[in-house]
Amino acid sequence: MTLSRREVLKLLGAGGTATLATDLLDASAPPEHVPPLQSDVVVVGAGFAGMIAARSLLRAGKKVIVLEARDRVGGRIKAGKIAGQTVDVGGMWVGPTQTRLLDLIKEYGLHTTPQYMAGKNVEQLAGRRWLAEGEDVAMDPPEQKEFDGVFAELDRLSAEIPLDAPWTAPRAEEFDRMTAEDWLVANTKLESVRSFLRAGLRDIYQAETYQMSFLYLLFYIRSGDTMETLFGEKDAAQAFRVVEGLHGVAGKLASELGSAILLETPVRAIAQGPKGVTVHSDKQQWFADHCVVAVPLPLSVRIAYDPPLSPERDALAQHMPMGSVIKWYVAYEKPFWRERGWNGMTNSALPPIAVSFDATPAEGKPGLLAGFIDSPWSLRWTSRPVSDRKKLVVDHLVDLFGPDAAHPIDYEDQNWPAEVWSRGCYGAYMGPGVMTTVGKSIREPQGRVYWAGTETSTKWMGYVEGAIRSGERAAAEVLARYKG
Amino acid sequence: MTLSRREVLKLLGAGGTATLATDLLDASAPPEHVPPLQSDVVVVGAGFAGMIAARSLLRAGKKVIVLEARDRVGGRIKAGKIAGQTVDVGGMWVGPTQTRLLDLIKEYGLHTTPQYMAGKNVEQLAGRRWLAEGEDVAMDPPEQKEFDGVFAELDRLSAEIPLDAPWTAPRAEEFDRMTAEDWLVANTKLESVRSFLRAGLRDIYQAETYQMSFLYLLFYIRSGDTMETLFGEKDAAQAFRVVEGLHGVAGKLASELGSAILLETPVRAIAQGPKGVTVHSDKQQWFADHCVVAVPLPLSVRIAYDPPLSPERDALAQHMPMGSVIKWYVAYEKPFWRERGWNGMTNSALPPIAVSFDATPAEGKPGLLAGFIDSPWSLRWTSRPVSDRKKLVVDHLVDLFGPDAAHPIDYEDQNWPAEVWSRGCYGAYMGPGVMTTVGKSIREPQGRVYWAGTETSTKWMGYVEGAIRSGERAAAEVLARYKG
Repeated sequence: MTLSRREVLKLLGAGGTATLATDLLDASAPPEHVPPLQSDVVVVGAGFAGMIAARSLLRAGKKVIVLEARDRVGGRIKAGKIAGQTVDVGGMWVGPTQTRLLDLIKEYGLHTTPQYMAGKNVEQLAGRRWLAEGEDVAMDPPEQKEFDGVFAELDRLSAEIPLDAPWTAPRAEEFDRMTAEDWLVANTKLESVRSFLRAGLRDIYQAETYQMSFLYLLFYIRSGDTMETLFGEKDAAQAFRVVEGLHGVAGKLASELGSAILLETPVRAIAQGPKGVTVHSDKQQWFADHCVVAVPLPLSVRIAYDPPLSPERDALAQHMPMGSVIKWYVAYEKPFWRERGWNGMTNSALPPIAVSFDATPAEGKPGLLAGFIDSPWSLRWTSRPVSDRKKLVVDHLVDLFGPDAAHPIDYEDQNWPAEVWSRGCYGAYMGPGVMTTVGKSIREPQGRVYWAGTETSTKWMGYVEGAIRSGERAAAEVLARYKG
Repeated sequence: MTLSRREVLKLLGAGGTATLATDLLDASAPPEHVPPLQSDVVVVGAGFAGMIAARSLLRAGKKVIVLEARDRVGGRIKAGKIAGQTVDVGGMWVGPTQTRLLDLIKEYGLHTTPQYMAGKNVEQLAGRRWLAEGEDVAMDPPEQKEFDGVFAELDRLSAEIPLDAPWTAPRAEEFDRMTAEDWLVANTKLESVRSFLRAGLRDIYQAETYQMSFLYLLFYIRSGDTMETLFGEKDAAQAFRVVEGLHGVAGKLASELGSAILLETPVRAIAQGPKGVTVHSDKQQWFADHCVVAVPLPLSVRIAYDPPLSPERDALAQHMPMGSVIKWYVAYEKPFWRERGWNGMTNSALPPIAVSFDATPAEGKPGLLAGFIDSPWSLRWTSRPVSDRKKLVVDHLVDLFGPDAAHPIDYEDQNWPAEVWSRGCYGAYMGPGVMTTVGKSIREPQGRVYWAGTETSTKWMGYVEGAIRSGERAAAEVLARYKG
C-alpha cells in the first residue's frame, strides 16, 4: 500500500523539497490504478481529519477510499515555497497539550523545533510603540492589570463550558445572545486593552469580536485549554514548529494511506438507503456501508444529500462561515532582526496585520518573517494583485522594523478565501444564536453519514489537533456500527 | 407556448383550487416535451425572480430555459391547503408601494383584498395584556413616546443609506460593527419597548436583533421605505392579500412561460468559457450565452462554478444565512373572534409566536388564523412532529383568545427550514462585518453568470416585490450584453 516517492510528492501537491519541482506539475496526471468501486467506508476529504479517519478504519481492517477534491492532500495544511525554502502556508504550529499531533509526529519519525523567541518583540498600539521581552506584552501597569483580569475572567467562565455540549452550559442562552465584543465592552474600561484584545482574538479566530457569539468564544477557549495556551508561544499552541513542516506530517499520512486516496475527485452527492451509501463524483460512483464527510463545515452543504440533511444540520452549516485570512511570508538575505536582539515577533493592535514572527529555517538563512493579513482585511485584499499585498506587508514591516525590512528577496502569500476547497481559514465560527439553536447537530450522524473536521472537535477545535481527534472519533463511530 | 390547465396545475405544485387535488399527485410525471439543449439564456430557479427574468428575456425575443429543482414553481411563494381552502403558506401580502407586484396582479387580471383589520387586536408583553384598535399598539404613554422615538430615529438613519451601495453610507463602518441589538440597547431605556421592538424586528426578518448587522437593518428599512411601511398593515407591506393567492400570481407567470420551465431539474454545476455557459443538471446539460442564477442567496454556492466564484461572492454567500420560520394556519368553523369585535391580530413580545392575523376567506368561513413560529424557535421545533407544533400554536391561541380557540377543525404549517430548496424563510440576512467587506459583490456578474433573487434587490429586499425587481434588473443586464 505504500507509494513511490514520486507518488507521495504528487499527493503532497507542493512537494517536499525544492529540487523536485517538476513533480508538482504532474499533479493532474490520471491515477495509475483503477480505484475500487466498492469499499466499507468512503471518506470525503484528505485533510488531517479525513486521513486520520481513514487510517483508523484501515488499521481496524476496513476497506476505505478517500476522495479528495484537490490535487493534493492536507486541506488547510499546505506546503509553499519562498526563496527556495519549503514552508507551511497553512497551519504550522504544535503545542505541548496537542498530544495526538505530537504522537503522530513522533510515530512518523519527524521533529519539532521551538518557535524562535529569543529577544525583543515589537508591541504597537495606536500612537504607542515599545519593545518587550519574549512573549511578554509589557503594557502599562493599569493596562496590564485590566488585561490580566480579562484573561482570568474568560478562563473562569470558559471552565464552566461542557465541551461536548456547550449549549447546556449554565448561562448558555445568555452568553449566546451576546457577541464577544458586547462582553468585552461591558467588562473592560481601557480602550487600549480592548483594542489589544480585539486584535488578539481576531488573530486566533480570523473573525471579529463583533461577529462571534460570546458562548462560542468561551467554548473555543476551553477547547484550547485556556487563554494563555491559545495566545502564548511558550508552553502554548504556538510553542513548536515541525522541522519537516506540518505538510510533512500530511505527507506521511498520505504515504501510509497510499492508493486509498484519490485526488482531484470532488464529491458532488451522497445518497443513502437501507443497504449503504452511494457517493457521486464527477467521474464515477462509489458504494460503501458508511461515509465520513471531513471537509470544512460550511462546505459540507455544497454536497447534495439524498435524503436531505436534517434542517438543523443544514442551518448549522449556513450559520458557520469560515474565518478569513491571507498568510504571508517575506524573505530577507538574513534574519537582520536577530542581530539587534529582536525576535521578529510583532503584536499590533492596528489592522490589517496583527502579528509577525520569525520563520527562519534551522540553517539560519534566509531570514523569514511570516504573519497574516487578518479578517476582514483579507476579504478586502483577496482579489488584489499579489504585488499590492506585497507592498502592504513590506510597508508594514518597514514601519515596525525600519529600513532593513525594505529589501526582501522574496514574498509569497497563501490566499485562503480564494482557495476553492477551503474558502477561508483557519476554521468556521458561530455568530450569536447558533450554538443554542442548532449547535447540537454538529456531530450527529445523518444515517450512514458521519462528520469529521476540526470544527466538529470538542478539544482543540480549529486546530490540526482538533482535526485529528475528530477523525478518530468519526472512525470510532463508524466502527461501532459494525459491532452493534 | 401556453399550457393546458392540467400542465399549469402541475407547474403550480399544490394546485389552484381545492377540487383538483388529483392533479397535484401528478407533479413528478416526466415532461411531455423534449427540452431544447441550446438557448440564449438559462435561468436557474422558477421563483418570482427567475420567472420574471425569464419573462423579460422572452419578451425581448430571447430563447430561455428555466430550470427549477422542485416539482413546482413559486419558490418561497407556495400554495397549501387547510380545511379545504387553498392558502399561501409562504409570502402572502402586497403593499401599496410594491408597484411591480401590483402591476403584475393587475396585468394577469387578479385581485387584491385588504387584510382584515376591523376591530380590536390583542397586545401582550410579559405580565401585561391589553386590547388595541386596528394596527394601534396602545402602549402606555412613556412607552409609546420611546417607541415612536425609535421609529423616527431608525427612519432618519436609514434615509441616509444609499440603496445601491449601503457599504458607502456615511457611518457604514461604524454601523456594520454593531448588531441591531447593540443599537437598541444604547438607544432605549424601557425593557418593555426593547422587547416589543425585538419581537417586531424578529417578525419582519425572522432573525434575532443580536444576529443582524445594524447597517443591514438600516438598509432593510430603507429598502422597504420606512419602519411604518414595514410594520404596518394599512398603507404598508401587509395591506393587501391577493384573492387568488400570491401562488396564483406565480401560476400565471408559469402559464405565460409555459414549456420554458423544466421542473425537478436541480442545477449542480455551471461552467463558462469565452463562447458561453454550460449548465449541468442530474439529467443533462444545457448550453447558452448567459445564465441567471435566481435561487436563495445562501444556496447559490451549492452549485459548483467553473471557473470558481470570486472569493468575495463566495464569502458573501457563506455569511448570509437564511432567516428561519414556520408559518402556521389554524382553521375554526367560523371566525369566532370577529363576533366579539376582535380582528384576529395579536402582537406578543413573548416568543415563540409574535403575531397572528385573520386569514379567513371572502366567504367568511371557515375562520382562519395564521402566524409564525419565529426564528430561533422555528429551528428548535422544525424536527418535532406536526402534532407538537399544533399543540404549541393552539395553546398559544387559547391563551390569547380563550377557550373558543381550543377546538380547531384543521391545522397546517409550512416548515421552511426543512424545505430543501429554500432552507429557511423569508430571506437571507447579514450579520455584522459582512456588508462592508464583501457586500459589494452581491450583484456583480461573474462573467456570464448574473444574479437575481430578492436578496439582490435594492428595493423591497426580502419581499416578492424585491424578487420581481431583481429579475427585471438581471434580465436588463443580460440584454445589455447583446447590445454591447
